[in-house]
Formats: sequence, structure tokens, C-alpha cells
Amino acid sequence: MTAITIPQSREDALASDAVNPLAKLRGRFKIPEGMTYLVGHSLGPATFSALQAVKVASEMEWAIDIVKAWNSADWINLTKTTGAKIAPLIGAKPHEVVICDSVSVNLFKLAASALPLTPQRRIIIEEDEFPTDQYIAQGLANLSATQFHRVPAGQGMSALPGGGVLIKSAVNYRTAEVADMDVWERAAQENGAIIVWDFSHATGIVPVDVARSGARLGAGCTYKYLNGGPGAPAFVYAREDIAETLLSPLPGWLGHKAPFAFEKDYAPANDAARFVAGTPPILSLSALSGALDVFAGVDMNALAAKSRAMGELALSCAGKLGLTTTSPAEAHMRGGHISLLHDEGYAIVQALASQGIMADFRTPDTIRFGLSPLYLGLTDIWDVMDALAQILETGSWDQPEFMVRAEVT
Amino acid sequence: MTAITIPQSREDALASDAVNPLAKLRGRFKIPEGMTYLVGHSLGPATFSALQAVKVASEMEWAIDIVKAWNSADWINLTKTTGAKIAPLIGAKPHEVVICDSVSVNLFKLAASALPLTPQRRIIIEEDEFPTDQYIAQGLANLSATQFHRVPAGQGMSALPGGGVLIKSAVNYRTAEVADMDVWERAAQENGAIIVWDFSHATGIVPVDVARSGARLGAGCTYKYLNGGPGAPAFVYAREDIAETLLSPLPGWLGHKAPFAFEKDYAPANDAARFVAGTPPILSLSALSGALDVFAGVDMNALAAKSRAMGELALSCAGKLGLTTTSPAEAHMRGGHISLLHDEGYAIVQALASQGIMADFRTPDTIRFGLSPLYLGLTDIWDVMDALAQILETGSWDQPEFMVRAEVT
Repeated sequence: MTAITIPQSREDALASDAVNPLAKLRGRFKIPEGMTYLVGHSLGPATFSALQAVKVASEMEWAIDIVKAWNSADWINLTKTTGAKIAPLIGAKPHEVVICDSVSVNLFKLAASALPLTPQRRIIIEEDEFPTDQYIAQGLANLSATQFHRVPAGQGMSALPGGGVLIKSAVNYRTAEVADMDVWERAAQENGAIIVWDFSHATGIVPVDVARSGARLGAGCTYKYLNGGPGAPAFVYAREDIAETLLSPLPGWLGHKAPFAFEKDYAPANDAARFVAGTPPILSLSALSGALDVFAGVDMNALAAKSRAMGELALSCAGKLGLTTTSPAEAHMRGGHISLLHDEGYAIVQALASQGIMADFRTPDTIRFGLSPLYLGLTDIWDVMDALAQILETGSWDQPEFMVRAEVT
Repeated sequence: MTAITIPQSREDALASDAVNPLAKLRGRFKIPEGMTYLVGHSLGPATFSALQAVKVASEMEWAIDIVKAWNSADWINLTKTTGAKIAPLIGAKPHEVVICDSVSVNLFKLAASALPLTPQRRIIIEEDEFPTDQYIAQGLANLSATQFHRVPAGQGMSALPGGGVLIKSAVNYRTAEVADMDVWERAAQENGAIIVWDFSHATGIVPVDVARSGARLGAGCTYKYLNGGPGAPAFVYAREDIAETLLSPLPGWLGHKAPFAFEKDYAPANDAARFVAGTPPILSLSALSGALDVFAGVDMNALAAKSRAMGELALSCAGKLGLTTTSPAEAHMRGGHISLLHDEGYAIVQALASQGIMADFRTPDTIRFGLSPLYLGLTDIWDVMDALAQILETGSWDQPEFMVRAEVT
């Protein structure tokens, strides 16, 4: 991967953006005029292709073909054809990825189905994982009479000896720290343990190569860097050789080998498709399918290089402003967002918003900037950090209208 | 409920439709010109309000407000506000119904969370239930080391003594037989058993009164008679007094009392909302919310009366044609569709389709006519049965083009 030089001036940034091969993708996104959107790590913005896909699915397919659209529009295979669009982004084969349910439900299915494959019946999770991962791990342990081990942040590897199922994020939701999947998988496989990866903050923004690392199972969110739309259904990755040995604890009819045979007993589909449970939400799934078309032909190395350069620029400016970060300093260990700490982070985010710069805040003191290279460039980051500098230098965040907290962000 | 007289002529049917209070709702549906749609028990057709809702959610809310729409468009409460629209259709209170996941996943969550409330740890299901209900019951039993009892059709009640969790359809998917919920609930409660109702083929078409029957838990599909759109997310009903004692085995972050506090341990929301797991598919959920607006102000007794009259007319004509039915003869014991048996059912359904009459076929020999009173009238049924009579009398189904089976229906 060729690194991109960090610009030293706004002119440098403009020049770098002008020659970046991803710059032309900005036009695929429908982002309001004058808005700089830094919350793609939470909810990606709309693409014209996603909006068109949901329009076709609702107004043409549903409204005209109605139930026949399961065949005529191939809805029946949409979980698979859409999964196949995600596969190349994580180094998987097309039939190793399928769309279904939410990340929460998918982690549950994968972890439960992996329990019989490891010598010790226990579920392991680190305490700084995204809350839903922790809750689901505990819910599964309670229901299945499985030991539950919650270990300190970063200590998951020390819990692997003896086996068990570890739920682990490829990129931490708060700090954006990247886990070295190769190292983790080697340790898991040496110890007879299985890792269920949560790819939510990794897919579409950092290089993931499940084939190289030997990762066997994972789930991920599609509405962040994949821009699939609010609450778009999640994906499951199950390596082909292991998929056939797994039994989902949620064997819904659409994961059956022959759903329309209406058999009394369950015979799962051959591959990852066995993790589909009930009927998928077709309108949301269609939007996702359309959104993924933007990734067709994108060089994931070029994408990662631009993402890292944007992160380097932002962190370098933040350092000059005296802001502390919890994000890793090394670019290749950092995901797609940076986290900056400030006691008045909430008001600062509101002050930025008043200038059209959308960032997010995580209680108690974390400002997050999501840096998606598909619709942002180095010049945008330059301008954002410039605006942040002015807000901090003038103290202009200290206004009553920036201090009132909404209930949720 | 005032019964509607069964018409003896097409003129009678026209006259009856002309004075029916539901007739005006036909204009709310976008059904292609010339099509008579009898598959509403599988996938309800589009309404203008559903199409408008998904357009607003995608093109206005997502594309303009992006992540802010969680607040500005109140997406964060959409599982609850949409559930509240279903509540009156089943006799529940607004906060007793919430939208989440699929029927498969919801049955799993409800049955698992009910296990601690019954003296005998076992799951009971009848062998003629919809396949997914059977698969899920078995999947849950396997994971949770729970006894699994599959009993013959109609014998669920004899399995209740001693307790356990029974998954039971309020209306059978194949025959449309209605279960007398009052009788079943009495038997369950006398025996310390808990019924998890599957309302999929009941909601929006037959009178359901959970408050009167004492039903405690249920899940249901929203894309059949509720017209929520393909794969629209399902609902959960949990009676308020029992909801607070239940722990979902899938404690996803959005069912947490304070999802954005990002707490390490799970503290569920107070009511049925605790059964929300991951982030819901907002575009599909918005379509559902819009579709439900058609039910505002609908008298469910008038709806059931019209549905029954259509069923009586169809069955009476079918009898004259010598067709056998598996649907109950008594109108109040029958749901919204009728099932007619014919060895050449598949070809007959294709022959009807060639005339714009959409019905469905379930292997090996079942023709199903879904009779939704919101967009069909007695005159439509008259004409359908007339077309069916001609097809049978002339043998015109016996054409090569009607015999080739598509892979799925």
C-alpha cells in the first residue's frame, strides 16, 4: 500500500485530493449541500444507488408484482446476492457471506453454533467491547448453561488457553484500535478456541482478509462504512469448510435447504446461508444492495491509504490543539474514526454542527470523527480541524444552545 | 357482530359491497389495474401510505438528516410507536406491543424467556404448525437443554398438564383453522403452562382479544394482513404484568433501558420494549408504520364480518364445484384464507393467474385464496369463483404453460 503524504497546507490537501482515485465517488452520495459528514462510523449517508434501489423495490417490485416479486425480482436470493457483494471487502468467497438479522442476533447465532467445536464450553469477552456484544455473550451463556468470562480490555488472548468462544471486535467501537487478526487467530487456533469476529467498525474501511488470517466466523454491521441505510440488516461470515458443521440455534425457515418444501425437520442450507432465520426486511435489504454498488471496483488498499492519511492529518492537528486521543497513534492500528477527549465534548460537537460539521459524542467525554474516504477528502479534514481550532481558541462552544443535551445522539 | 348475508347473485354481491363501510379503503391500496389479489395471507399489497412512508424515510430523513434522524424523525422510538398501532388490533395496550426482528427470532426470545416461569422445563409444539415454529422450538430446546415435545396436530392441549411452554398459532397457516384462545389460555393457566402465540395468520383479519383471553405472550407477522411490506419486521406482545419478569436471551443494546449509556451490564427496558435486540431496519419499519395507518378507525368486527362472508361465499361455490376444503366450515373458526384441494392445484393457480387472479399454491395439492376485506369485496369473490368454475369445467388448466413449476411460489 502506497502511503499518502500528509498535507502541510490547504493547497497541499487540495492537490492530493485532486489526484486521488476515490475522489470521483463523492458524486455517488446524496449529502446535503454545505454539510461535512463525520458520522459515517455510526450511520453512513445515502447514495443515489441505495435510494434508487429502495424506490424500485417498493414502487416497482412490491407495488406491481407483489408476492411474485420473490421470484421476478429475485428477493428470494437477495440475502445471498447482497452478501456476495460484501465478501470481497473482507477477503471471503461469495457464498461465505450472507445478510440476515442484526449484529446482535448474528453474534448470538455464531457463538452458540461454535460452542460444540471447542473443548471448553465457555464464552469469553473483553470488557471494553461494544455493549451489545457483552450483553449477547451473557444472554447466550445464561440460556445455554455456559461459563461466562469477562476479561479486562486487551486481555482476551490470555483467556484463550483451554479453548472457548471469544467474541472480539476487529476494530474497537470507542478507540478505533485495530486488532491484528492474524495474531489473534493464530493464538485461538493453537489453543482450540474459536473467535467470532465483530466486523462492524472494520468492514469497508480497514483491510480485512479472513482468508489470510484464517478467521472462521464473524458478523458485521452494514449501516456504518457500507452505507446500507438506517438499521440495514447485518451480515454473517462463515468459512466454507466450517459452515457445514454448524447448527444455528435459530433455525428459521429461510435458512432451510428447501424452505418451500415445508418439512417438519430442519435441514440447513449448505453454506453461510444456513444462518438466515426469518424472512428478511426486503426494502432495507434492497437499499443495502444498492449502496454496496459504490464499492464495485474500489481498491481497498487505496481506500485504506486515504483513510489513514485523513486520520494522520486529523490527529496531527488535534495534537497541536492540545487534545488527547484514545485512538492508536500508528495508522495501521487505527480504524476509520478518531476519538478526541474533551470535558466539554458535547458542546464542542454542537458548535461544530452549527457550522455544518457533523460529528458525534460518546459519553462522558469522547468526540468521534468518522473519516470515510468515499465521500471525504483531505481538504475536508483540513477545514474541519481549522473550524475546531477556532472553536477551541475562541471558546465559542460555551454557549447555552450548545449545552442542552438531546436524549440520544 | 352483525353477519353479512351471503349473496345469491352477482347483483346481490354488488349491492352488499356498495353499502359496506370498508369499501372505501380499497382506494388506499396500490394494486395493478385488472388484478384480483388473493395472496394477502402471504404478502399484503402496497398501500399509498406505506409507499409514502418509505419514500420519506429514505429520501427525506436518511438522505437529509442522516444520523440526526434518530431524533428528528423519532426513529429511536419507531419500534414502540409502530407497535402501538398494532396493539388495538389484538386487544393489547400500546406499550404491550413492540416491533422487532422476525417471527422466528421473536418466538425464540419469548419461549426462552418464558421457560423459568413454568414448573416443567419443556417446549411443546404441534406437528402441523408452520415449519419455522417447529424448527425454532427444536433449536431452542437443543441449545438450552430443554425437553422437546412434538405432539400430533390438535393435541397440544393434552400436553399442557405439568406445565411447559407451548408455541401455538392462533390461526393455522395451512387450513386457516382458528384456535379458541380463551379455551387454550384457560387450560394453560390451570396447568401452569405458558402459551407463546403465533399471531401471524390472525392479526388484522380475525378478532383477537388478548386481554379477554388472558394471553400473556405472542409474536406475529406484519407483512400478511397488515400489509407492512416484504419481510417487514415482526411484533412481540408481552402482557405488562409479565413483561417485567422476562429476560430476553438476546439482550441487544436497543432493548436496554438506557442504550446510549453504554453500560457493561444489561438493564432491560420496562415493558415489551425489552425484546428489541439490535438496531431495527428503519426503511422497512417505516413502510410498516405507514401501512398500519389504513387500520386507523377500522371496526375489527366489521372487518371480520366481511371476511367471513367472503369465505362463506367462496366455500359455498367451491362445494358446488366439487372441491374439497381443509378449511373449517364454521365461519368463526376460520381465518382469512380458504384452502381448496386439487391434484392439479398448481396448474389451476397458473390458469387463474393468466386471467389476473393471483392465488397461491402449497405443495402437494393446496390452493389458497386469501380474502382480505380491506381491498376485496364479495363481487371480487363472485368473479373469482366464476373464473375457477370455468377453468375446471373446460379443463383449461391443462396447458403446458401452466404445468411448469417455478422453483418457489
